Amino acid sequence: MIVVMKPGASKDQVQHVIDLVREYGLKEHPIVGTDRTVIACIGDKRAVDKGAIENAPMVEKIVPILAPYKMASTEVKQERSQIEIGPEKFPIGGPKVGIIAGPCAVENEAQIMQTAEAVKQAGCIGLRGGAYKPRTSPYSFQGLREEGLKLLAKARDATGLAVVTEVISVETMDLVCEHADVLQIGARNMQNYPLLEAAGEAGKPVLLKRGLSSTLNEWLLAAEYIINGGNKNVILCERGIRTYEDYCRNTLPLTAVPELNERTHLPVVVDPSHGTGHAHLVPAMCRAAVAAGADGLIVEVHHDPEHAMSDGAQSITPAAMVGLMPVLNRMATAIGRDM
Amino acid sequence: MIVVMKPGASKDQVQHVIDLVREYGLKEHPIVGTDRTVIACIGDKRAVDKGAIENAPMVEKIVPILAPYKMASTEVKQERSQIEIGPEKFPIGGPKVGIIAGPCAVENEAQIMQTAEAVKQAGCIGLRGGAYKPRTSPYSFQGLREEGLKLLAKARDATGLAVVTEVISVETMDLVCEHADVLQIGARNMQNYPLLEAAGEAGKPVLLKRGLSSTLNEWLLAAEYIINGGNKNVILCERGIRTYEDYCRNTLPLTAVPELNERTHLPVVVDPSHGTGHAHLVPAMCRAAVAAGADGLIVEVHHDPEHAMSDGAQSITPAAMVGLMPVLNRMATAIGRDM
Amino acid sequence: MIVVMKPGASKDQVQHVIDLVREYGLKEHPIVGTDRTVIACIGDKRAVDKGAIENAPMVEKIVPILAPYKMASTEVKQERSQIEIGPEKFPIGGPKVGIIAGPCAVENEAQIMQTAEAVKQAGCIGLRGGAYKPRTSPYSFQGLREEGLKLLAKARDATGLAVVTEVISVETMDLVCEHADVLQIGARNMQNYPLLEAAGEAGKPVLLKRGLSSTLNEWLLAAEYIINGGNKNVILCERGIRTYEDYCRNTLPLTAVPELNERTHLPVVVDPSHGTGHAHLVPAMCRAAVAAGADGLIVEVHHDPEHAMSDGAQSITPAAMVGLMPVLNRMATAIGRDM
Amino acid sequence: MIVVMKPGASKDQVQHVIDLVREYGLKEHPIVGTDRTVIACIGDKRAVDKGAIENAPMVEKIVPILAPYKMASTEVKQERSQIEIGPEKFPIGGPKVGIIAGPCAVENEAQIMQTAEAVKQAGCIGLRGGAYKPRTSPYSFQGLREEGLKLLAKARDATGLAVVTEVISVETMDLVCEHADVLQIGARNMQNYPLLEAAGEAGKPVLLKRGLSSTLNEWLLAAEYIINGGNKNVILCERGIRTYEDYCRNTLPLTAVPELNERTHLPVVVDPSHGTGHAHLVPAMCRAAVAAGADGLIVEVHHDPEHAMSDGAQSITPAAMVGLMPVLNRMATAIGRDM
Repeated sequence: MIVVMKPGASKDQVQHVIDLVREYGLKEHPIVGTDRTVIACIGDKRAVDKGAIENAPMVEKIVPILAPYKMASTEVKQERSQIEIGPEKFPIGGPKVGIIAGPCAVENEAQIMQTAEAVKQAGCIGLRGGAYKPRTSPYSFQGLREEGLKLLAKARDATGLAVVTEVISVETMDLVCEHADVLQIGARNMQNYPLLEAAGEAGKPVLLKRGLSSTLNEWLLAAEYIINGGNKNVILCERGIRTYEDYCRNTLPLTAVPELNERTHLPVVVDPSHGTGHAHLVPAMCRAAVAAGADGLIVEVHHDPEHAMSDGAQSITPAAMVGLMPVLNRMATAIGRDM
Repeated sequence: MIVVMKPGASKDQVQHVIDLVREYGLKEHPIVGTDRTVIACIGDKRAVDKGAIENAPMVEKIVPILAPYKMASTEVKQERSQIEIGPEKFPIGGPKVGIIAGPCAVENEAQIMQTAEAVKQAGCIGLRGGAYKPRTSPYSFQGLREEGLKLLAKARDATGLAVVTEVISVETMDLVCEHADVLQIGARNMQNYPLLEAAGEAGKPVLLKRGLSSTLNEWLLAAEYIINGGNKNVILCERGIRTYEDYCRNTLPLTAVPELNERTHLPVVVDPSHGTGHAHLVPAMCRAAVAAGADGLIVEVHHDPEHAMSDGAQSITPAAMVGLMPVLNRMATAIGRDM
Repeated sequence: MIVVMKPGASKDQVQHVIDLVREYGLKEHPIVGTDRTVIACIGDKRAVDKGAIENAPMVEKIVPILAPYKMASTEVKQERSQIEIGPEKFPIGGPKVGIIAGPCAVENEAQIMQTAEAVKQAGCIGLRGGAYKPRTSPYSFQGLREEGLKLLAKARDATGLAVVTEVISVETMDLVCEHADVLQIGARNMQNYPLLEAAGEAGKPVLLKRGLSSTLNEWLLAAEYIINGGNKNVILCERGIRTYEDYCRNTLPLTAVPELNERTHLPVVVDPSHGTGHAHLVPAMCRAAVAAGADGLIVEVHHDPEHAMSDGAQSITPAAMVGLMPVLNRMATAIGRDM
Repeated sequence: MIVVMKPGASKDQVQHVIDLVREYGLKEHPIVGTDRTVIACIGDKRAVDKGAIENAPMVEKIVPILAPYKMASTEVKQERSQIEIGPEKFPIGGPKVGIIAGPCAVENEAQIMQTAEAVKQAGCIGLRGGAYKPRTSPYSFQGLREEGLKLLAKARDATGLAVVTEVISVETMDLVCEHADVLQIGARNMQNYPLLEAAGEAGKPVLLKRGLSSTLNEWLLAAEYIINGGNKNVILCERGIRTYEDYCRNTLPLTAVPELNERTHLPVVVDPSHGTGHAHLVPAMCRAAVAAGADGLIVEVHHDPEHAMSDGAQSITPAAMVGLMPVLNRMATAIGRDM
């Protein structure tokens, strides 16, 4: 942490800050510059709210230096994490790129079984599908809940695909764990700390979506809650951020992929469906995500998007998915990976 | 809803969309323009995902017309809601502007009792203070929890102030209700739907903070979850949004105040502490919020900000609060209200 | 400037950075911390691109410490600047709050003369009106140009109001100077450096609007271009920034007012018309801007907004302006100023 | 355009809007819905400011339907534009992907000649380099100006590369045209309309960068200014937008590539250097841009980034460029293109 004093800070004011810094258990290194004094502070006290020092007289600002997360960081673990998912233990984070696909919501047995078969045929390794749906409006379809979970499990049994499904409450955590291979924590719940803590105690891998306008630090700290709770198997999922852009549901910042690969050992997958919001934009962004180095994709696929109960606008058809897979395969090969 | 067809859409493609519109229970009004056909759709089916129609061939976009919320809307209830809070039943949403103040977190008995007395003296009508703290980092102080709630109740008993405190989980809802006068739902939980549903069943008024980058529609739909659950007593709290601005913790968009006054009968209060993040900016934004027509303020006040366990940088002192109150009073008077 | 090394940087790598720092004419202070080494650099070399040091091996990031502007800064000049505008030399930046009003575009003589009389009657001190209009579409009305300037001058002669009008090119700078009292540089041109340099040489005060998504630093550096060019009379105008919010043309961040008052001696005025985009939101934001401490307002007023040739949606009527002025006056009084 | 009336609008109020619509030369289609009346308006009057209708009593909002641009649109021209650049007439927008590379600024002859040779060797088709530099700070290096142009021309003569360089003022347009093969208009000048008009009259292709927070509509309207001025040869360049993200200089929204391919026949290239701001992120985003379907890239390459006079942090070395080209070639091949 660096404390920057305002120009004209007196010796006493600098000393007052030094006293505060020491109270916080840190060691100070004051540096007197041409215009102002800065105080570099050494020591790792991530738990204290050092921002409070900003309120001392003549302090201009506090500049943090250390990353606020630890266990998620490449500083603590250099080796990349590989997280095995589903009955076939596909290793997300290894040399292979894994594609997860399926409908936004489980709607009925025929739909989920048919889609599961189709995405399996296409070469995907996971099946997504929502049983508990967090919906912006209380009047929207909220999911089939437990029945949906059972249908997903049935689809896994029939296909060997890893089932990825969202958990939205501590109360239903156990039930979801019973049926799912991967627990999805959605963008809206990225900072739902009781839920993160419960996921830390669950025995299943977690796919943690980036919050709607989270920074990378906030996202990695959310992962840190889960790891800190005892669960190292966290997959990060970039799904787009909110910006002023109005033609897409979210802006998909693929730069997060190489940046996260610098900062964390955790695998990173991309969701081009929520990342764009429109089916005609999905294939290009699937390709771009693989090219940028994503460890996998999670894509919304629906056999009849015009009648989908949610996210129809951003769902592609199984046929489109089948057509896309060889291109993605070539992309992976071009950077020395495969599918 | 308006469906906009692409230029060159054939009669059959337009008819296909008309068939879809009818399936969704709506009545169509096609209008053939110079460049393209648009199909206005009549009927209120808020529950269906009409976005799916976007996936039909040659559809360019879907333009929604109706507000997605109902019970929160001035279309359904013109009369402004007044929500009485605390032992003295102060009516938030009436002609008086109510100021709520207190520390970010309850730290210990001396702190909360001392601050409560000070803000009462200053003329505030509510005491804020966190017992359960949702913190970005798992290593930060997480609050005194039940003990904190009891201290808040004690402060209320001593001062008559309405206690406003955050609830962060369904599990602790009953416990918080036992001690609080107003349940705060924080920005991170604005779309935690199980929590909103539980708040809908709680017998206490709810102060619902705007999510970090929520639209007004999303925010009002979150309020709709609570009202729909049976609790009409929802106070909206603007606390700033995330933008590219880097000198403040959030950007505080006070325009939300007059806009919400058009759209909803619910009271609107403003949090200039989170809305700015820095104590030196808080007084000006308290004044501006009252001038813009806010029904109240919620302000972080700490007797020793340099040592606050959270949000020290944005906390003002009791003395600053005392100095600010007469100015706010003159602001209120200038627009025909008082405090 | 602080150079933060990555963990594990070798002594040679730290030395390499120290060598670079010295090459840039700075003096280094390396500090070896628990996790990493940081190198504080002393000396004011604003002209060099120190970001380049980021490319040295094992450098994690560069943290700037000094504000990049000088002459606009309160570090260089503590006393607040008062800038006299118009034939009556109204001092913007003094204890009085000055209101400037008028149409988006000068449309014809009757319109501008009628509006000028009305805003003068209301108590305004300046008349705004565009003669050269930078329009998003090449098919939109581009302004009356020189004829518009002459009409503005005529309106000034009739009323004594200070004429504020936009200059959009170096070529027309002299012509605009001939007729205007204040040169407006619009948001789109905030980083048009040849134009800023020309404004630096013009003998007239400049009202510099904030760019659509400029930071405060970028805005103050744009002011610095003008001051550096020889013209100290710069008035900053906050007009809203682009965010994800969709109900308003721009998000109006009034926090900029108190923050700028910390950083710069230049006066700050607010444009609630562009800052909201909708007439029904303008009065509340006029009040809030004065309450926040703005030195003035610039407001779009049109006698017939339904037929305005530009910005009709955000124009208020002269009658609305007349009704608003006493309220603004009470706001100013409440904070110890007047109008 | 659709005019949405508020609920409760009277017949007279609807009729008043209909009268206004007719005055604007449009034909109305009123549709009386369950909650409110909407008025669909037919006819193409892009030049009038229909937003003014919003100010009529009981109008809730105006929803535009038509794209505001014409000549840039695929509605007017379906066939994709190919724009030949440089002495070898490389067709940007055809099946081949063209890579343009070079330093941010021309610094001296040795630097530009050496870099030109290196990027030519790597297989690039264009040389970028700034002679006139629009710099945020007046104290930064502003470019070699005419001397820089001459050095660029010399480098073209030696290598056959197309020279791409920025023009920042109408005054210097002719001079830049004399030496450049492609006129770059930078992000800061995207809405500098006199400059766009001058570029419309210049006989050279224009590379038009997206403004810092422009929408696609605003960007295409800027292109429309150039085309409308007589110059059809416009290449769009996505260079990232400003968002809340703090680890990158800009957020690079590659979704713009497939979306623009729907809307416009103009070629689209991507600038991953400004789009990320950091050299370690550039290669991944080069790959992703090609995978997303970009017609080309423009990349900052410097032989000694640690000593670059501008943009050192985001410049990659010639060696890195050489290593990247075969990967990009495989990416292009994977989607049926080549380099």
